Amino acid sequence: MSDGAKSPRITSIIENQLFRRQRSIRQKQSIDVPDFEKTYAVIIFSDKAKLRHCQDVEKIIQEFKVLTTLEVVSKTEKYLYLSATTEALLHFADVAELSKLTITGSMQKFNCDCISDYLLPGMTPADIVRECEGPVLIKDMIKPAIMSYIRNGIIEDFFPLHNIEYLDRFAFDWRRSRLPIEDICNYFGSSIALYFGFTEFYTKALIFPAIFGMLQYMWNVNLSLVCSFYVLWTTIFLELWKRRCSGYSYRWGNIEMSSLDKPRSAYHGVLKPDPITGKMMLQYPMRYTYLQMYCVSYPVVLICVAAAAYFALYQFQIEAEVLADFGPDSLLLYIPVIVQSILIAIFSWAYEKLATFLTDQENHRTRSQYDRHRVNKLMLFEIVNNFFSLFYIAFVLQDLKQLKYQLMMQLLIFQIVCIAQEIGIPLMAVVRQKFVKYMHKEIDEGIKSNVTDLARYEQCFYEAGLDQYQSTYEDYLQMCIQFGYVVLFAAVAPFAAFGALINNIFAMHIDLFKLCNIFKRPFGRRAKNIGAWQSAFELLSVMAILSNCGLLYLQPNVKGFFSKIFPQMPDITFILFEHLLLGLKFVIHKVIHERPRWVRIALLKADYESDEAYKKLKKFKAQNKID
Amino acid sequence: MSDGAKSPRITSIIENQLFRRQRSIRQKQSIDVPDFEKTYAVIIFSDKAKLRHCQDVEKIIQEFKVLTTLEVVSKTEKYLYLSATTEALLHFADVAELSKLTITGSMQKFNCDCISDYLLPGMTPADIVRECEGPVLIKDMIKPAIMSYIRNGIIEDFFPLHNIEYLDRFAFDWRRSRLPIEDICNYFGSSIALYFGFTEFYTKALIFPAIFGMLQYMWNVNLSLVCSFYVLWTTIFLELWKRRCSGYSYRWGNIEMSSLDKPRSAYHGVLKPDPITGKMMLQYPMRYTYLQMYCVSYPVVLICVAAAAYFALYQFQIEAEVLADFGPDSLLLYIPVIVQSILIAIFSWAYEKLATFLTDQENHRTRSQYDRHRVNKLMLFEIVNNFFSLFYIAFVLQDLKQLKYQLMMQLLIFQIVCIAQEIGIPLMAVVRQKFVKYMHKEIDEGIKSNVTDLARYEQCFYEAGLDQYQSTYEDYLQMCIQFGYVVLFAAVAPFAAFGALINNIFAMHIDLFKLCNIFKRPFGRRAKNIGAWQSAFELLSVMAILSNCGLLYLQPNVKGFFSKIFPQMPDITFILFEHLLLGLKFVIHKVIHERPRWVRIALLKADYESDEAYKKLKKFKAQNKID
Repeated sequence: MSDGAKSPRITSIIENQLFRRQRSIRQKQSIDVPDFEKTYAVIIFSDKAKLRHCQDVEKIIQEFKVLTTLEVVSKTEKYLYLSATTEALLHFADVAELSKLTITGSMQKFNCDCISDYLLPGMTPADIVRECEGPVLIKDMIKPAIMSYIRNGIIEDFFPLHNIEYLDRFAFDWRRSRLPIEDICNYFGSSIALYFGFTEFYTKALIFPAIFGMLQYMWNVNLSLVCSFYVLWTTIFLELWKRRCSGYSYRWGNIEMSSLDKPRSAYHGVLKPDPITGKMMLQYPMRYTYLQMYCVSYPVVLICVAAAAYFALYQFQIEAEVLADFGPDSLLLYIPVIVQSILIAIFSWAYEKLATFLTDQENHRTRSQYDRHRVNKLMLFEIVNNFFSLFYIAFVLQDLKQLKYQLMMQLLIFQIVCIAQEIGIPLMAVVRQKFVKYMHKEIDEGIKSNVTDLARYEQCFYEAGLDQYQSTYEDYLQMCIQFGYVVLFAAVAPFAAFGALINNIFAMHIDLFKLCNIFKRPFGRRAKNIGAWQSAFELLSVMAILSNCGLLYLQPNVKGFFSKIFPQMPDITFILFEHLLLGLKFVIHKVIHERPRWVRIALLKADYESDEAYKKLKKFKAQNKID
Repeated sequence: MSDGAKSPRITSIIENQLFRRQRSIRQKQSIDVPDFEKTYAVIIFSDKAKLRHCQDVEKIIQEFKVLTTLEVVSKTEKYLYLSATTEALLHFADVAELSKLTITGSMQKFNCDCISDYLLPGMTPADIVRECEGPVLIKDMIKPAIMSYIRNGIIEDFFPLHNIEYLDRFAFDWRRSRLPIEDICNYFGSSIALYFGFTEFYTKALIFPAIFGMLQYMWNVNLSLVCSFYVLWTTIFLELWKRRCSGYSYRWGNIEMSSLDKPRSAYHGVLKPDPITGKMMLQYPMRYTYLQMYCVSYPVVLICVAAAAYFALYQFQIEAEVLADFGPDSLLLYIPVIVQSILIAIFSWAYEKLATFLTDQENHRTRSQYDRHRVNKLMLFEIVNNFFSLFYIAFVLQDLKQLKYQLMMQLLIFQIVCIAQEIGIPLMAVVRQKFVKYMHKEIDEGIKSNVTDLARYEQCFYEAGLDQYQSTYEDYLQMCIQFGYVVLFAAVAPFAAFGALINNIFAMHIDLFKLCNIFKRPFGRRAKNIGAWQSAFELLSVMAILSNCGLLYLQPNVKGFFSKIFPQMPDITFILFEHLLLGLKFVIHKVIHERPRWVRIALLKADYESDEAYKKLKKFKAQNKID
């Protein structure tokens, strides 16, 4: 499960994964092998697992009515394939209280006693459970029971298998104008689907500032207009995304997720009856969480953020000193920059560990909460890391020329790193494929004759060698920093939006390609919104008002412009303008409702239906004197 | 019903209402008359109503299973007493979908088929319907049917009768430290109860700035500390009130009120199936409402507000001109002030009519929405009306001495007007009682022998002469303006909070007294929060940050203080400080959850229970093949 436990077998096969998987698809399509029973997930035992252990695990899992097939290929290679009948899955879905669309058009918690209510026209019972939900339901059922085997290293890995036919839907297609978000949700779960939904929405929204940026460049638009444009654009974009997002999460049955949902697996506490359902559940007093958050975590975070800001300032000072001591041509000028970059990299790495540790200590109940608080900490730090020096140059040094230069340099480096990550990694994987094509070792013929289902075995063998997909964190962070470059200094960087637009069009498709081809399939994760990233984008959008207004203020001709309107008080007029923009942002934020009307109506309708049912049940009980 | 339809009979008896009502209480208590069946409400017919009309109305009302007693006292005096059995009321409550507490501790929509679920220990079925709900349930049932009689003036008045014994609970008691909010809600409905809840909460919160103001005066506290204190105090106070309020509205069964609830009676539209319940309901496209709001109402409001601001500026100009032309001792100096005051009064009056008209045009679906949008319009205007000149003096003229003088004058006038309204009106009523005691006309002895139940007749006769209670608007407005005086210029007016505290302690009790004694009992109105007033207070609290920081900036010694810390950039430091306060406010706003944890748990529990019931019902239907 952990990186340390990776056996040499696995690392040796990483290289030819892509090629082999493609071959196995061809094989399957051409030879038309009898379709094996759909395998949802596979458990891989480590070298030290004895056959006895494997059989124990199998027995435990079978108690949950999960179908298992134990495949002992050799002494070191043991697989346990997990599958389930449709009935079992539907039962799991009922227990997990998944929300599903009913034929009356409202979302209700799934109930396996009346499957027909959930069978929309053209659906079979097997369609009720989404493609990504099968593995998750099985995992949620069995994981607590096999946790001890995972902890002591007998189980090395546990992951869902790719559905090779379904993956075809994500093949790249130039004619397609939008990403197949619904399919992504079906296959990867709502958390990843929301990431793609957001990327797509953001990329489309970037068209406006891209055009505006060109107009701004050509006609030298008044900066106060630029400020106003970005206030309107960022606010409306973020508000509309919230609406879009709640539409998604309604359709995907996540809109009623709350911080009082079932706890994540790392949550600790004491078993007590849950105040909502009355079932025994882990409970941990909120006051300890708050205490940890406000008295430990956030003070530490603020100290780190301040340290990062100080680091950035320090660089300027050192540079100035070196410049004074050795002159502008000395090669020594590069030393502070290099030392600085290395220190920042180390500091960032350490900070990420620290943030994770602090968030662990806070012991949040749900995964969404945990992620939100972790990302909050990281995001604050990254914003300071990336933008503080620009703010310093702009408003303390007040050097617009250096600002433009520094901004361009940073943006360039950032885009190169992005492109390297986005294109380089898959490209390298493909190149490696081509290379190993001539040297890959085939699976032993002896083993081939040993296994019952060769295609399944091959798929497991190859997919086990893929990297684990970590989370959407890196991808969101990239987008967030990019958004910062686009909006924070829009007044002096009119082309940033255009660059971001071009970059994102490619990045979207490449992200999807990577997810389908070079990572193990992740267990689908539910999410009702993009969590802390919404706040991060909103924070940047507020900072953009301040920074752009600041830039406006620094323009000499603008100062003259304002003092022409109200000669007595140019400064107050200016502050008034900035506050009006802040106010405008707030008013738009209030005026646009977080949820579209149809979602509100649908939610009320579902409530109404279940209230009516409650009433009927009570009536029925009263009439028949049942208790 | 309308003011124009008031007959001379009614105006002639206004005077001796208080005295007579008190006498009728004494009578009832001493003579121990057989208690007549509880009369919930009374319909009074106008002079032009013929007996035939009265009987028609009675017949219509009887169809709803409301008990009626027609009392024809004379040709011009006809009363129709409305009453209902407990069963009928419970049935009405079921139809109206009132939320009631069940024995499992969650709120569920009331269901008259299983009354036992709602019978908490010590309750009888009659206790399920609150004291204020009986008349409202009857009104909601019958009003649409008798609307035509109201419109053409046959029905002159329709109001609930006071419950004279219940009123004893609101008698003034010095030992009582808190208002009987729950009783007020029971008797007057949640809208009025929230007003008292808010007044009480606000008054208690005023203790902090009152103490702080004294410290500020004694020790000459640094103004930046004053700014920070008021940011913290206003924000925390408003957020805590939101939590308190959601606790109230949960307990009172209003928390799930939404803009998609049943329409108010003045709502117009076409009959269409409701998207939530499927029943036929009036529907009006939201886009017309939005169009009206954003393209007509708010532009008009902004023009009016700008005009009010211009008026205020104009006064300064005229004053300056008069001063220049006639010198500082001329009596002519008073003329602009007087003209101005008259113009403002006329303008305010016209604006209120305009705001009401505009809001009517917007055709909001629910009463809460209607009130919110109407108050929004009025409140913006009143804020400009009351505070614009102070802002002008402070930040354009930058004359702190004049600001203090003007502030004190305005505050004084405001308090005098408040006290006059609060104490004067009831006092006048009482004085009039004493006077008319020796000249009031007794009810004709002939009539006395005519009526079946003298006490009931007398009560109706006297209560019909009372003024109609309009709404909580005036009271909230007073508090809102007072809050403005307390926080907006806290830096120069440290004693405003203390004055407000003293004033409010009295005002609370006097408001309650007025409501119990000099107004007709109003039909209870449901509300889940204080609506637009929350925004009004929040707006003032944001404005307070700006104005106090502005005052801080104008202090000469403070400018020096800031330039000592960061010598390069005193202005930027200052703006930074102000934005930090704004940011702090926003963070507190985000960190404090709108609803207390117990409310969230209780709501989820209720959802869980009805979802479970829905599941069980479906299961039962599936098992028994019922459809």
